[in-house]
Order: sequence, then C-alpha cells, then structure tokens
Amino acid sequence: MKNFRQQQQRPKKNTLVIGRKAIIEAMQTGKQLERIYMQSTIHGETVDEIRKLAEQNLVPINKVPVEKLNGFNISNHEGCVAIISKIQYQDLQNIISFIVENGQVPFFLILDGITDIRNIGAIARSAFCFGVNAIIIPDKGVGALNEDAILTSAGALEKIPVCRVNSLMKTVDELHLNGIQVFASEMTAKKKLFELNLTEPCALVMGGEEHGVYPALMKICDEQFQIPMMGDFESLNVSVATGVILYEAMKQRLG
Amino acid sequence: MKNFRQQQQRPKKNTLVIGRKAIIEAMQTGKQLERIYMQSTIHGETVDEIRKLAEQNLVPINKVPVEKLNGFNISNHEGCVAIISKIQYQDLQNIISFIVENGQVPFFLILDGITDIRNIGAIARSAFCFGVNAIIIPDKGVGALNEDAILTSAGALEKIPVCRVNSLMKTVDELHLNGIQVFASEMTAKKKLFELNLTEPCALVMGGEEHGVYPALMKICDEQFQIPMMGDFESLNVSVATGVILYEAMKQRLG
Repeated sequence: MKNFRQQQQRPKKNTLVIGRKAIIEAMQTGKQLERIYMQSTIHGETVDEIRKLAEQNLVPINKVPVEKLNGFNISNHEGCVAIISKIQYQDLQNIISFIVENGQVPFFLILDGITDIRNIGAIARSAFCFGVNAIIIPDKGVGALNEDAILTSAGALEKIPVCRVNSLMKTVDELHLNGIQVFASEMTAKKKLFELNLTEPCALVMGGEEHGVYPALMKICDEQFQIPMMGDFESLNVSVATGVILYEAMKQRLG
Repeated sequence: MKNFRQQQQRPKKNTLVIGRKAIIEAMQTGKQLERIYMQSTIHGETVDEIRKLAEQNLVPINKVPVEKLNGFNISNHEGCVAIISKIQYQDLQNIISFIVENGQVPFFLILDGITDIRNIGAIARSAFCFGVNAIIIPDKGVGALNEDAILTSAGALEKIPVCRVNSLMKTVDELHLNGIQVFASEMTAKKKLFELNLTEPCALVMGGEEHGVYPALMKICDEQFQIPMMGDFESLNVSVATGVILYEAMKQRLG
C-alpha cells in the first residue's frame, strides 16, 4: 500500500530550541515543535507572539516554574524552551485528499485521552499493521510522542502519519464534511463491533481506560459499539481493544 | 459461564517461608510456592529433600549468592527462602475434566517465553474477557506472576485458572491425549488466523516477541497460523496479537 509518510521528511533528532526569538523563528520557518515550556511569570510582546504562533501551529504550551527550565542545563533560556518534534505531524485534509486521489477508502484512528506511552506505542504498531491511514491525536491530554513512544511503537510512529489537532470536536466535523463516518468504542453500547460496516470511509475513536471517550465527542459520533465479551469482566487493555477493532476492520476490508 | 477458579481458594498475601524445615513443611502441607531462593553453596539431606519436593511440586529453584538471601532482611534463613504464590495454580487434567463435565468446549492459552509482566497482565485480561478456560505457563522462562502482574491484569490473573507445568512439550502431549488440538502463532505461516477452525477443543500457543515459539514445541503443534496484515511491517505487540487471536476464536465460538 502506498504510504503518505514515505513522501515526507523523516523526524529529526530530539533537540531543543532555546530562548524567545529562536522559538519564534523556529515556528515561522515551519519547524515542528512538540511542546513549549514557558516560565509561568514571564510576559511581554515576544511572549504574546509565541502564544499566537503556538496556537496557529498547534503547539501546546506548558507553564512551568523557572526551576524546570533551569533543569535543562542551559543558559539564557529567557523563560522559554521548546522541544523539536520527533514526529513530523501531517495535515488531516491533505491526508484525506491523498487517500482519495489514490483510490483508497479512508480509515482513521482517533485517540482521546490515552496517556500511557506504552499503550500508544502498541496502538501505533497495530494501526500500521492493520492499514490505518493516519492516527489523529489532540494537542492536549495525550501521552507525548517522544523517544520512548517511538521505541515502544517499534518504529511504527515514524511510519504511520500522525495528525495533531486542537479540537477533536472540530475534527469530527471535518471528517463528516469529507463523508467519513465516526464510530466510538463504548463498553455499554448495544451494537457489537462486527455489526458495524467498516468497509465504508470511517474513523474509530478510542478513549482512555479510565474515562473512555469524552461525552460531548461521543454525542457527535455516528455510532457507538462494543467489543463482545464472554466473561463478566469487561476490561481489555486499551491497546488490545484497539488491536481487536482494527483487526475486525481490516478483515472486513479484505473481504 | 461457570468458572473453575470460583470454586478454588483465593490467592494469599505475598509472604515468605524462611528456612529449610519451614519450606519442606510448606510443600508437604500443600502450600503453593512461587519460587525458592537457595544459597548456591549449601548441601545436605534437608537440601536434597527440598530439591525433591520442589521438583514434584513444580516450584522453580533459583541458586543465589548469600547476599541475595540476606537482602530479604531476615535472620536464620539457613540458605533457603521461598516466596508463597500469589496465584493458586491449578492442575491441567482437573481443569480439562471440569470443563468437559460442564459441557464446555476446551479453550486454552499457552504462553511460551513471554517475560514482560505488563504483557502477561494484558494477556490475562484478554483471556478472561474472551472465554479462555485456563492459561498454561511453563515453570521457567516466563515472567513471575507477582503482585505487579496481578495489578496489570486488573485482577484477571486472580479470576482465570493458571496451570504451571514443567514441560510444555509434555503438556501438548497431554492435550493431544484429551483430544485437544494445539495451534501456534507464527508470522511466516501460510494459514491465516480466520482459516482455523477454533470451535473445536483447542489450545493456542503464543511465543515471546523476540524468539517466537520454541522450535521443538512448534513442531508438535497441529497447525501454524498467522494474523493477516496490510502493512509491510509484521510486528504487533504480543499482548495485542494474543487479544486479536482470542477475539477471533470467541467470535467463531459465539457463532
């Protein structure tokens, strides 16, 4: 299968961007940042500029005490340190166009509130193995796609496109506008996984183990479904549950 | 579904048995031990007695330097400390009889060389959810079913029967004698998972991520199969692969 990622730049080595001007320049020149650590007490024009650019570029800002920044062991951080992304994030609409142009049926995986890096790594492996076109994650509330995540993904996170979005609600709207249905996994749903038609363009939403899918997001999904169980103990590990769902989808798609 | 474990004693708190006579007495009175740590330099009649009982009761002995034993912070260990099992291990033949008497179709999961506790925990959850009758593990070369394993299994390891055996080869023979087929997961197999008939009495063998199923064991299995993939990257996490396989089996069994 043709792979969107293969056309793209490979992720770079984990490095830092240090100081306000350097961070502004990095974002202006299109360098992808994983996260900006900003001293909680700083303000001023350049700080406002960083905030604006970060919002435009979907880079989360973490406000931190100065000790956190000093911990990076660098001088002259000016209250701001950014981490360059290990992942080259993609634009969702570009990916949808690419898939459709290549005659494929869109198949996305949305992760909502999954924070454990090992689970994210295992999920990325399954997504790649079972033919997911891209993984969609929110810019907040998901485990950082750092070196450890890439390691536990056995490299899959470098092979499968990842889209970082600032609102999963808006993303579901965007998917709907592109004719892509959105299905959410929910333990109490009546519909069984294998009763879904997964051969149509679709995106699957997986929530975290503790809280599941965010209720407002669940509401705008087209269908809810559950994985059938034999025991009285409905508690698959989230990466296993995702693997099972993606396997079912792939099986239907292979016919 | 009726559960063999529910008739059994609950696992006890993790405690130690200290000293040679206490360990002999523990095994003679049927207390289940997870492991015996034995000072590498000791010998004598009671030591021979411990070795004999340990072999009969399938308790692994780890030979260790005295410092390891001193590390337990106890006096008078006499070169021997045992850890009481958190898991109440079951006898395989008893379980087979129980299943057959209850009109069920045997369905076992054999773990060969899976050492990562988190994977074992996730696998136990899937096994319980998808109706596996018992998990079979060898007494060596598998991650310890300690408190962490039980924690990552979300309690499933206390709900599903576990059989500890000293030879998986002999176990496969025993399964065959009971009319139970044994299928092994192997990436290069020609047969696809969904081409197997999993509605008959069967046991599934999962190997570790690095080395897969032990070759001699693979040879005596009835069938090898692979999980079909769409990507060129055949590398599911082992707990995800197990979950997918058990889901397929459960689906076939539910009809």
